[in-house]
Amino acid sequence: MSIPAFDLVIRNALVATASDTYSADIGIQGGRIVQLGMGLAAGAREIDAQGRVVTPGGVDAHCHLDQPMEAPARMADDFNTGTRSAACGGTTTVIPFAAQHKGQSLRAAVEDYHRRAEGRAHVDYAFHLIVSDPTPQVLTEELPALIREGYTSFKIYMTYDDMKLDDGQMLDVLDVAREHGAMAMIHAENADCIEWLTRRLEAAGRTAPRFHALSRPMLVEREATHRAIALAELVDVPIMVVHVSGREAVEQIRSARSQGLKVFAETCPQYLFLTAEDLGVDDSYQGARCICSPPPRDKRNQQVIWDGLADGLFTIFSSDHAPFKYDAPEGKKPEGKEVAFRHIPNGIPGLETRMPLLYSEGVLGGRITLNRFVELTATNPAKAYGLHPRKGTIAVGSDADLVIWDERPVTIRNAQLHHEVDYTPYEGIRLQAWPAYTLARGEVVWDGRDFHPRQGGGQFLRCETPSLLPRRPKPGQASVSQPDTDR
Amino acid sequence: MSIPAFDLVIRNALVATASDTYSADIGIQGGRIVQLGMGLAAGAREIDAQGRVVTPGGVDAHCHLDQPMEAPARMADDFNTGTRSAACGGTTTVIPFAAQHKGQSLRAAVEDYHRRAEGRAHVDYAFHLIVSDPTPQVLTEELPALIREGYTSFKIYMTYDDMKLDDGQMLDVLDVAREHGAMAMIHAENADCIEWLTRRLEAAGRTAPRFHALSRPMLVEREATHRAIALAELVDVPIMVVHVSGREAVEQIRSARSQGLKVFAETCPQYLFLTAEDLGVDDSYQGARCICSPPPRDKRNQQVIWDGLADGLFTIFSSDHAPFKYDAPEGKKPEGKEVAFRHIPNGIPGLETRMPLLYSEGVLGGRITLNRFVELTATNPAKAYGLHPRKGTIAVGSDADLVIWDERPVTIRNAQLHHEVDYTPYEGIRLQAWPAYTLARGEVVWDGRDFHPRQGGGQFLRCETPSLLPRRPKPGQASVSQPDTDR
Amino acid sequence: MSIPAFDLVIRNALVATASDTYSADIGIQGGRIVQLGMGLAAGAREIDAQGRVVTPGGVDAHCHLDQPMEAPARMADDFNTGTRSAACGGTTTVIPFAAQHKGQSLRAAVEDYHRRAEGRAHVDYAFHLIVSDPTPQVLTEELPALIREGYTSFKIYMTYDDMKLDDGQMLDVLDVAREHGAMAMIHAENADCIEWLTRRLEAAGRTAPRFHALSRPMLVEREATHRAIALAELVDVPIMVVHVSGREAVEQIRSARSQGLKVFAETCPQYLFLTAEDLGVDDSYQGARCICSPPPRDKRNQQVIWDGLADGLFTIFSSDHAPFKYDAPEGKKPEGKEVAFRHIPNGIPGLETRMPLLYSEGVLGGRITLNRFVELTATNPAKAYGLHPRKGTIAVGSDADLVIWDERPVTIRNAQLHHEVDYTPYEGIRLQAWPAYTLARGEVVWDGRDFHPRQGGGQFLRCETPSLLPRRPKPGQASVSQPDTDR
Amino acid sequence: MSIPAFDLVIRNALVATASDTYSADIGIQGGRIVQLGMGLAAGAREIDAQGRVVTPGGVDAHCHLDQPMEAPARMADDFNTGTRSAACGGTTTVIPFAAQHKGQSLRAAVEDYHRRAEGRAHVDYAFHLIVSDPTPQVLTEELPALIREGYTSFKIYMTYDDMKLDDGQMLDVLDVAREHGAMAMIHAENADCIEWLTRRLEAAGRTAPRFHALSRPMLVEREATHRAIALAELVDVPIMVVHVSGREAVEQIRSARSQGLKVFAETCPQYLFLTAEDLGVDDSYQGARCICSPPPRDKRNQQVIWDGLADGLFTIFSSDHAPFKYDAPEGKKPEGKEVAFRHIPNGIPGLETRMPLLYSEGVLGGRITLNRFVELTATNPAKAYGLHPRKGTIAVGSDADLVIWDERPVTIRNAQLHHEVDYTPYEGIRLQAWPAYTLARGEVVWDGRDFHPRQGGGQFLRCETPSLLPRRPKPGQASVSQPDTDR
Repeated sequence: MSIPAFDLVIRNALVATASDTYSADIGIQGGRIVQLGMGLAAGAREIDAQGRVVTPGGVDAHCHLDQPMEAPARMADDFNTGTRSAACGGTTTVIPFAAQHKGQSLRAAVEDYHRRAEGRAHVDYAFHLIVSDPTPQVLTEELPALIREGYTSFKIYMTYDDMKLDDGQMLDVLDVAREHGAMAMIHAENADCIEWLTRRLEAAGRTAPRFHALSRPMLVEREATHRAIALAELVDVPIMVVHVSGREAVEQIRSARSQGLKVFAETCPQYLFLTAEDLGVDDSYQGARCICSPPPRDKRNQQVIWDGLADGLFTIFSSDHAPFKYDAPEGKKPEGKEVAFRHIPNGIPGLETRMPLLYSEGVLGGRITLNRFVELTATNPAKAYGLHPRKGTIAVGSDADLVIWDERPVTIRNAQLHHEVDYTPYEGIRLQAWPAYTLARGEVVWDGRDFHPRQGGGQFLRCETPSLLPRRPKPGQASVSQPDTDR
Repeated sequence: MSIPAFDLVIRNALVATASDTYSADIGIQGGRIVQLGMGLAAGAREIDAQGRVVTPGGVDAHCHLDQPMEAPARMADDFNTGTRSAACGGTTTVIPFAAQHKGQSLRAAVEDYHRRAEGRAHVDYAFHLIVSDPTPQVLTEELPALIREGYTSFKIYMTYDDMKLDDGQMLDVLDVAREHGAMAMIHAENADCIEWLTRRLEAAGRTAPRFHALSRPMLVEREATHRAIALAELVDVPIMVVHVSGREAVEQIRSARSQGLKVFAETCPQYLFLTAEDLGVDDSYQGARCICSPPPRDKRNQQVIWDGLADGLFTIFSSDHAPFKYDAPEGKKPEGKEVAFRHIPNGIPGLETRMPLLYSEGVLGGRITLNRFVELTATNPAKAYGLHPRKGTIAVGSDADLVIWDERPVTIRNAQLHHEVDYTPYEGIRLQAWPAYTLARGEVVWDGRDFHPRQGGGQFLRCETPSLLPRRPKPGQASVSQPDTDR
Repeated sequence: MSIPAFDLVIRNALVATASDTYSADIGIQGGRIVQLGMGLAAGAREIDAQGRVVTPGGVDAHCHLDQPMEAPARMADDFNTGTRSAACGGTTTVIPFAAQHKGQSLRAAVEDYHRRAEGRAHVDYAFHLIVSDPTPQVLTEELPALIREGYTSFKIYMTYDDMKLDDGQMLDVLDVAREHGAMAMIHAENADCIEWLTRRLEAAGRTAPRFHALSRPMLVEREATHRAIALAELVDVPIMVVHVSGREAVEQIRSARSQGLKVFAETCPQYLFLTAEDLGVDDSYQGARCICSPPPRDKRNQQVIWDGLADGLFTIFSSDHAPFKYDAPEGKKPEGKEVAFRHIPNGIPGLETRMPLLYSEGVLGGRITLNRFVELTATNPAKAYGLHPRKGTIAVGSDADLVIWDERPVTIRNAQLHHEVDYTPYEGIRLQAWPAYTLARGEVVWDGRDFHPRQGGGQFLRCETPSLLPRRPKPGQASVSQPDTDR
Repeated sequence: MSIPAFDLVIRNALVATASDTYSADIGIQGGRIVQLGMGLAAGAREIDAQGRVVTPGGVDAHCHLDQPMEAPARMADDFNTGTRSAACGGTTTVIPFAAQHKGQSLRAAVEDYHRRAEGRAHVDYAFHLIVSDPTPQVLTEELPALIREGYTSFKIYMTYDDMKLDDGQMLDVLDVAREHGAMAMIHAENADCIEWLTRRLEAAGRTAPRFHALSRPMLVEREATHRAIALAELVDVPIMVVHVSGREAVEQIRSARSQGLKVFAETCPQYLFLTAEDLGVDDSYQGARCICSPPPRDKRNQQVIWDGLADGLFTIFSSDHAPFKYDAPEGKKPEGKEVAFRHIPNGIPGLETRMPLLYSEGVLGGRITLNRFVELTATNPAKAYGLHPRKGTIAVGSDADLVIWDERPVTIRNAQLHHEVDYTPYEGIRLQAWPAYTLARGEVVWDGRDFHPRQGGGQFLRCETPSLLPRRPKPGQASVSQPDTDR
């Protein structure tokens, strides 16, 4: 009896990367993919993929887990339940946010967040930073040091009183990104406009959840997107505009690209599957469940987002998972009461449904190619935040983070999801696919029916420099060579 | 002594696909890649890549070889010399054109072209068609049949008297593309404008080569690009706008994309490395060598093309190799005489220099990523014309068409190229890289110094349906599912 | 008893020009305005305007009267009935078309048209030319001579088999416009697209009037608009794009303007008050009455046209009056039969309703200023076609062509209109104003109730060079002066 | 001997308004135009215009006179010298700014400014307000009251520490404009960007005048323009973007217009006749004379501004006269010393040269029509700020503010100008015209050689509601009438 060549072999996979689709066996050893080929030698364990599509495990580059909140709000998911939910939906890497609070040291925020993550995660994780107080200390010491240590991306808020930066602070922070090669993520909404509209709505007694959408119309996002692009252009640094919701913001990004600017963009399931009507068409409170920012728009804007996913405008598709319960004192009904929309925590859950929604409606619905699906959900997020090629692809040497897809009818039911939130905004949507298996570094964490916990098995990932853009040339290679005179 | 597991193993490759870059050995058997992994078993032959970049062999999706011309013009390269030159520059698949002449059956054109190719090629080849006479016979019988037989792409000329279609004919032909899933390539220049300008230039005695550029200003290309897009929009079919030369055409394509239209675009080295000044700044005849259509523009437009290569606007990077000698009776000096620009054959050679130019100035020059290089030169052309994943990538099951790159200074000298043309427009340009090896289905055809002929080893490839776009959904999967009522 | 100072004085007018609104008396002598002032001396006749708005009489720069047609079609209005109808709606100058037929001399067409006009018109008239056969004779002799003689504008058709020019012919004709300072009007629709769509609709049995709109979708107009602009840019000549119907064409014009190109635009009431639904929502034949080209679009496009009228995009507002009866052998039911839309004469009546529609819905509806109304309906048409300041304004020396407005509710009824067409597409629309008086060179032709014929009183007007654009500078004044060195 | 019918008659004028050009005599009585006609009766005084062009006197809607400054800066021109200079250059109405300082009551600022103006002006004047401290008191009481009293326009600064409003304040102030029908003028530059760039330039020792331009690049203006438009769109109010300097801002305005937004724009001579190089090409201090904000750009942007003047993009052409001496302790060399650009007062003189520059280079240079000149320099400013038709045109009832133009070569020399500033940025520019006469309410204040003072003759003008836009419809006239059912 021979010694198995691999810990695990996945046979008869239809392997899909961001560029290719082909049939192969996948040989896994020590949690990594060590061989791809036809008729590989035996593995200690084998899974027959039966010709099913196998994609890289998802990289959810925008999600919130156990992030400290101002009371009474509290996030329902921590690194345990959040990564559990992620795994069951085909996501094997998460990048939540270590959020600095004003007055706090950025390093302290990171250390605190490590304590929250340590020993709890079922899949691997990295941290984005949130810079809300860019003191000289932060700008010249903490941030550069943290970037060197593997925290190579951070988020800038243009709204939310406790987080937002003014334009001068944004320039300062973007300049650090430029100098140290980090990726800046921008939440682009104009804070003053929102506050002004909110006050007017409140003065008119219009405080039901649906007015949340009216307090943040598209132009509020468009303006901030334009401004963020202008600031990045001034500093000469790439940026990632996150959770883009519709046409007006998309046009700003297209226009910037056409000028040669490096403006990347992310969108989320809520801008494909929800509209402002999901926040309510009357003054009932039910729509509080769908309150997030920017708010979902309308059907025409959904199409604009689909077009942007198909044609390359969007780089990343994330969940922006923000796990607040609906019917709980620390959730959307704070202290269990119906409150004005201003006081309802912003955000919706989505870690587990992100991949199946896009696979089903995007790939099987004929809107995007399978390769583009992989690129949006795994490869590009991994590149954008310095985790590629360890994460985000199926290649020799990559971690064996894999999803084997089962193309079968599934109706989304919160009862069958694995997060701690008491609802999903996608309840009842009928999908055509769900993961048959999710593997995290070679271990089955989801088998199509059951979750297989490996708490603490998820490791912290130090991020490298983002790799979406060309490397700077070596000296002497930078410009188009002029022919010599001997022509 | 054990039996080698592979015909050939490439060790220590830095494998680059359109999405990934990773270290691996490549195991080749029967001309195909059968395994990718770490520490593969032995091969009958082995090449140590020494950590060098290994890319898929190039797919040159726009080149002209041995295409019948009106006398005295004659192409200098046939399938022998053309594919020889291709191989030495890292290109392992070519797709030249079987051109219908007015009055001719399309099938006859294909059969004639097969006779020209048969037994001569050193690398694999497919055929595009050129439809210049869309009779009812062609539209309803020949073209559909040929598409089914593996000729899934064709070119439509909007200029050149012997080839151009009018708008009504274009609609007819595009409609066939839509119905049968073929890819239409468009040469977009307004014929009437060119003729009108040419006559005026001639009337003023302005017939030197440099006036060729004045006879085809940017707006002539912009107009035809807009028109082609409108016709494709009317028919609801994707198109590929070929050899895009600068800003005004790029803007039309960007605008179409932003409306959700499926408009693909190709560009060529001449729009990155030449300008209109290369056609002459005075009335000397030397510039005849750089006459091609559309003509090269200026430095600002070169930057627009670089931006489009980097940001995803362009899908394909081809040579548009059109091999006319300069100093020969059948070439740019027809009957050996200096003639008015109208009579100078249009086109420049470029099969061999395409890949090294883009690798050197694009990748090493920091303008595009290595993955984007692969996508533009190999993966996307293969997808656009139905050859992927057999061609255009490094994956299990793909043909072992590979380039091992040597990053070293090289100065382009026509004396060292392998085509039959007596000049290169890129003479004297200093590059930073050239293929160390080119492999065609597992055989070394170029070893960095010498060409290793395998005449007739190149096979004809039947093309499948283009795969750049999503597959049409199965019934019941087409639209975003509405949630059931149980919400 | 003193001798009256004026033939006619209009007292207490609220005079409106394209720039100003002010109170004054208007003194008229010999058919011309000779004085404007407060408390003018007595006139032989006086009309008390009672503070009502007085505008210049309308100049309808796009209308068809007694134009020779291919049998059985025949226009219902000639210079008698057409100018009668014009006068009763406040229009005092018309510019119909002397149409060259292929094979015909352009001069012959003009002479024939003079015979049709001679002695019949109640208001003044000029001629546009229609160039449908630009032979060398026409281009080098007839057209330049006719321009010199006062026919300074001509129309180019990009569609209609019997009139359309190809791109090369358009360039030739535009070049004559440039050299001789004439204004070219462009009917911009792509003929091949229309023919292709029409055949497909017919093949599917879709021949009811409403399919006319489907045979000429917006992109057909957009494409031709883009092309016309490109051709004009090549020749470097201003053009007037006539009867612009909606957003896509408007965007092309805006884009051209933003590049500094001199592209003028005209629109018509049908694009403000009709939609494609007026051609029918089922297969009934009634909608034949609203068949015109380009066809009316939808509500959103109506708003785009209103926006363009308000913000200066449009230069001219014309009727495109094309008087075909509905229920007549020579009209929309040719030989009295319902026919396929292809055979229904294109065009709708509108000479009489143009001014009241725009005054009522534009000015009184708060969409455009009163001055803009004057500019669009009178001043700019007069300038564009070389009739200003004799026509199109209220100024000392101008012809006393005036409208005194009565702001009162009026419902449009064809029974009360004065053309010979048996319907109006605007039947039943409720307006807020109608002319109380129309004066043609100082004579009352309409008094709010009755038409006062002055057949033959209308004179032929020789047009000067268009004056919408700056005069060319005198030598030495052309460029921004550089300061001398003594700075 | 008969009594003269008029105080003054101008004979043989070629009268130019914003729409018309015609020959007439102008009869003036009591400072107003009472008659326009041929062969008017005699005047007590007569001026023979000899067929020369007569335009309305200029309305300079953007100029700074005797505005309180922080020491040591002080404006060199007050209402005496400023209006003297204006008159000699053909401007007969000025609208400088009553500037609120933070902490000050707006009414106090107005009262103070009246004291500065009282009895000093040679031509009529109105006031814009500058709102720099929009307290609740200002927003709800002072500003509405002042609007009612004839101060119907105010300026909002987005930069300058002592004046700038944040976005929330801008929304508040714009909302007052909307509710009370006032016109808001916007100085659009991003303050934070400027400060950030200035600090970096200073840190690098780059403080010479030319770095002023680098501290305020085009994108700083583009961003603020986009933001101002978004805020106005949110509030639904028209705005006037002042001193637009080039392409990027122009594109924002064009884009807004194409969406139907009411965004007006002003530009100034410095953006036609100066470039950034006038601030210096080395570190010499001379360029301090041309420091203004936004800074002049380059030749290509000058052309964009000319195009916008010609095609209707710009509504108003003003001077932005900001009279700081160069060589004076209170001027550009504060305390007589060369200082860092941050400390150099911003602004250049231009009241006297505005009209001749545009007449000469615009009208005689063939770039704009004579009517457009009148519109830009007189009619539109008067309309935008509620002074039309009393000011800004030549019409019965209007003030007899007139310029008779002399088309003759003139070289601009500061020694011959009438302001108190010790330089003009246009020194040495050769013009082709200058006013032969300027009349202010019928009095000659400039006769082509000499200034005729009438100190205190200039009156304060209460402004009406701006009249650039359509009046709101009366009830029942607002929307396009639907036809009745009887169709």
